[in-house]
Amino acid sequence: MEALMSSRPGYGSVSAVVLDALRGIVGESGVLTGDSMQDYARDEAPNAAAFMPGVVVKPGDASQVSRVLRLANESKIPVTPRGAGTGLSGAAVPILGGIVLSMERMNRILEVDENNFTATVEPGVILRDLCQAVESKGLYYPVYPGEMTATLGGNVATNAGGMRAVKYGVTRNFVLGLEAALPSGEIIETGGQYIKCSSAYDLTQLITGSEGTLAVVTRIVLRLMPPPGQRSVVLAPFDSLEKAIDAVPHILRQRVLPMGIEFLERDGVHVTEEFVGKETPIHQYEASLMIIIEAENEGEATRICSDVGELCLERGAIDVFVANGERAAELLAFREKVWPAIAQGGRADMADVVVPRKHIAEFVRKARQASRDVGVGVFLLGHAGDGNVHISPILPDVPDGAARMADFFHRVYELGISMGGAVSGEHGIGYLKKPYLESVLAPAKLDLMKRIKLAFDPNNIMNPGKIFDI
Amino acid sequence: MEALMSSRPGYGSVSAVVLDALRGIVGESGVLTGDSMQDYARDEAPNAAAFMPGVVVKPGDASQVSRVLRLANESKIPVTPRGAGTGLSGAAVPILGGIVLSMERMNRILEVDENNFTATVEPGVILRDLCQAVESKGLYYPVYPGEMTATLGGNVATNAGGMRAVKYGVTRNFVLGLEAALPSGEIIETGGQYIKCSSAYDLTQLITGSEGTLAVVTRIVLRLMPPPGQRSVVLAPFDSLEKAIDAVPHILRQRVLPMGIEFLERDGVHVTEEFVGKETPIHQYEASLMIIIEAENEGEATRICSDVGELCLERGAIDVFVANGERAAELLAFREKVWPAIAQGGRADMADVVVPRKHIAEFVRKARQASRDVGVGVFLLGHAGDGNVHISPILPDVPDGAARMADFFHRVYELGISMGGAVSGEHGIGYLKKPYLESVLAPAKLDLMKRIKLAFDPNNIMNPGKIFDI
Repeated sequence: MEALMSSRPGYGSVSAVVLDALRGIVGESGVLTGDSMQDYARDEAPNAAAFMPGVVVKPGDASQVSRVLRLANESKIPVTPRGAGTGLSGAAVPILGGIVLSMERMNRILEVDENNFTATVEPGVILRDLCQAVESKGLYYPVYPGEMTATLGGNVATNAGGMRAVKYGVTRNFVLGLEAALPSGEIIETGGQYIKCSSAYDLTQLITGSEGTLAVVTRIVLRLMPPPGQRSVVLAPFDSLEKAIDAVPHILRQRVLPMGIEFLERDGVHVTEEFVGKETPIHQYEASLMIIIEAENEGEATRICSDVGELCLERGAIDVFVANGERAAELLAFREKVWPAIAQGGRADMADVVVPRKHIAEFVRKARQASRDVGVGVFLLGHAGDGNVHISPILPDVPDGAARMADFFHRVYELGISMGGAVSGEHGIGYLKKPYLESVLAPAKLDLMKRIKLAFDPNNIMNPGKIFDI
Repeated sequence: MEALMSSRPGYGSVSAVVLDALRGIVGESGVLTGDSMQDYARDEAPNAAAFMPGVVVKPGDASQVSRVLRLANESKIPVTPRGAGTGLSGAAVPILGGIVLSMERMNRILEVDENNFTATVEPGVILRDLCQAVESKGLYYPVYPGEMTATLGGNVATNAGGMRAVKYGVTRNFVLGLEAALPSGEIIETGGQYIKCSSAYDLTQLITGSEGTLAVVTRIVLRLMPPPGQRSVVLAPFDSLEKAIDAVPHILRQRVLPMGIEFLERDGVHVTEEFVGKETPIHQYEASLMIIIEAENEGEATRICSDVGELCLERGAIDVFVANGERAAELLAFREKVWPAIAQGGRADMADVVVPRKHIAEFVRKARQASRDVGVGVFLLGHAGDGNVHISPILPDVPDGAARMADFFHRVYELGISMGGAVSGEHGIGYLKKPYLESVLAPAKLDLMKRIKLAFDPNNIMNPGKIFDI
């Protein structure tokens, strides 16, 4: 398909007439221009450029979203929906200018329904606020992408994952329904407060993970769970990553599914220990598994941890450490500090390839070999229980450093795909991974996705230039 | 949108030239014509008409599917994909003639992967065979739509649900990846052997539940689980359905989610007792809950059942019966016989509306009122834990019986939608529920779905006349 409009002169600029119309829709205080837009020019992707919006618009409700979209659609102005801007792939960055549609004012928790076990929220609600609200009612939202200041709208847009996917799955598994505004301004409702539905196409799941390229989500119905009783962590160090990974299917075959199984390598542990100023029990070991357990009560937790620990020892673990309560929380907090620790120097980047979990050991070994071949240092860690590997190469301080990084990324994405994996397990494509996605996606599939995109958005105003080019 | 082709003369007929070409693709034995096609003219929907196919084609692999579709697309012949024909809404019935694409020869279990906890199957694999294969490897496929002779392809096409949805969800929650042939003959792969994926649109979930209107599924990657240890059933009779349903959220708020919570009313119990020739402990009670528990071992099962039982008594249950082992299996088998018992007279029909589960009691009461208002008898039962209510009106033996049934169905669908529900929780729309779906779906949403349909299938050859008309 040919480029629809991003090459047209003037595309992405916002005229005075349009600015006035936008102020008419969302009010004076809902429109930002000039330097106050700086905060909307990037997300948290490392080493990425800033792109200034043409205008930042903050709608207060679905009807305002609808009117902004209708205006943008008529004027062919690109619209970039944005949550908290904590993404890592540039999806919320206005690379073609135009309107940044910041959902920050639509931050109401509309309902926590204790009988249906659902929460209904506006997209600008912060994950931390949702968790507090549902926990105060004795319920539990188990998806934990790790960034508690992200918005639910952002979580839905990227289908955010995280550490608890082994037991609970990812964001899309908890999105039961949506209200969304189409580029035409029409508002649709999809799904609802129920799990079962066999009533025509599942638009809920199609919009979830579409990174704002199809529609603007204006309300989200989330599934909630009964809360867990007790959380424990089993730490199991091994003398090789292969041995550690090979233990994983045996752990998963226990009747009680762990919430998550993380793997760490020595380098990542060391840099994080330095970052937090504290040594861990796995300091000296080549590779370790961190197995997160949820149990109904302390007795059950002890029994499960002991079973898992024994199993690890049978599979070659050098030692086993079990932590409960605060100590368990500390270890989980440590795990979450690994990326900030790696990223602190400002030279780290990240891929989050997912592969079938049985291939993790091989994938990690080959990714490490690729890093040697192209000459970049790399940290590897991730979610051993679900096949999602975080690969953080460090920009080498040499003239062709950037080229080496790009070369490395191409190699690991191709490697992941060749093993039956996908480009991104949880961070999304945005514009930063677009070239990699396009290079590995089959043309028939890519073309089909473009036709679906145009079925929603014939003028390509919704987050153009993201995921793929039209 | 205007009718695309179903009104054209000759549509759905299959010429001798096309028949020859089909024989060339799938072989002589893969093509049925004439009377041998009788078995492909209906599904298990009660009281529905038969529609003879133009031809029945049985492809042996994805490449043959692709070639058949390309031919059908060029010749504009409708294609109705078909599994075992156990559906209840006519989705697999060739209402416009043309090709019935029976997937019965594509019945190989390609892999049960003990390390990834996945099964990869062809669409013609029977659910019972899958369960046996995975159980023999110590794994578990927990989705249980109740009809073990259905194919996995059919389960995927309708997003089949069943009794275990409270704990495990429905078919789509276990579909990790697909291979599918598009009407153009192109073959795409979606998803894979992993749970996490944030790499462009989720075509897996879009195709799942689309009832063969978008593409023909040629391979399915399913997620597997560790097996449960012990299954128990708690039977709790109440003196009103309201009291029974009101107990449900309290049961669900326990830390251990039951696998399912079914509700039964006296009439349905009686007719089933007669059908199976055996009385149950809930014989004399107005309404009962059947709570299905999975536990790691006998001790845990006893404890959970005792907690659930106590809770039911606190919420007004008249008595509580706990069954384990064979006795539990007998009760579950009894539950599965309710529909055959109701249907045996040949005059029963069924709707499977889903509503937010907190509205079940009100929905059931109003549905019963509607049945009185229009003058049809009705059996009500269903999945209290997930809001999916099965409503079985009995065709009254009066001149306007059929009109009364249609009137009743319209009323219950409108009622369900007005309570935030959907037309079908697990059986799909097919052609039999099409008028009801079209009457309750917002035009903006329906139009969007039609554009998505055309993005896959511009000539509308894929199961035309199903779900909605183009």
